[in-house]
Amino acid sequence: MCPYRLVLEHVTSRWGVLVLILLLERSHRFSELRRAIGRVSEKMLTQTLQTLERDGMVHREARPVIPPRVDYSLTDLGREAAEQVRDLAAWTERRMAAVQEAREGYDAARAGS
Amino acid sequence: MCPYRLVLEHVTSRWGVLVLILLLERSHRFSELRRAIGRVSEKMLTQTLQTLERDGMVHREARPVIPPRVDYSLTDLGREAAEQVRDLAAWTERRMAAVQEAREGYDAARAGS
Repeated sequence: MCPYRLVLEHVTSRWGVLVLILLLERSHRFSELRRAIGRVSEKMLTQTLQTLERDGMVHREARPVIPPRVDYSLTDLGREAAEQVRDLAAWTERRMAAVQEAREGYDAARAGS
Repeated sequence: MCPYRLVLEHVTSRWGVLVLILLLERSHRFSELRRAIGRVSEKMLTQTLQTLERDGMVHREARPVIPPRVDYSLTDLGREAAEQVRDLAAWTERRMAAVQEAREGYDAARAGS
C-alpha cells in the first residue's frame, strides 16, 4: 500500500475525523475530547491521538500543573488536514437528502425484483 | 452516530477511495477495477460498489451483450464526492515528507526517553 494511504486512513478514521474537527475550533484536554465525542473508549481515543500526533497533525502538551493537565491542539499540518476533512464532512451532511433518496430507490428496486 | 458519518466512512473507506478516484477518470468494468486496485478480493470490491451504488455515488449498468458486461460510472453526486476525496488523497501525498519528518521526531523522542 502507498504510504500516504495510511495517512489518509488516519485522518478519515471514525475518531480521527471527530478529533480533527473538534481541535479546529480550539485546543481540548483529553477529558473534553472524550466528553465531546461521547461514545469512544479511553483506549481508542488515546490511540487515535497518538497516531495523529505521530503523523505530525496533533500537538500534545503536558502542563506541569496540579492536577496534571494535557492539552491537544492542531499543528499547521493538522489544520490543513482538518479543514479538508471538515469540508468533506459538511458536504456529506449537506447532500444527505440526495443519498437518502438514492437509497430508497435502490432498496425499492431490489424489493420489487 | 449521525447518518452522514456513515456516508463519510463509505467514501473514505480503503477501497471506496480507490474506486472513486478510478471512476473519476472514466467508467470501468468490474474486472478493470479489480485489476487496477490489485489487492482487493472480489467480495470486498462487490461490497464496496454496492454500498456506493446504494448511496447514489456509483451507477451500475449491466449491458445486454455476450459475454455479459457491467460498467460502473460516477453519478453527479459521486463525482462531487470523488473530487474531494481525490484532493484529500493528493494533499496527503504532497505532505508525506512533513508526515515522515514528524514520525521520525516522535519515534526519536520516545526512543530517547
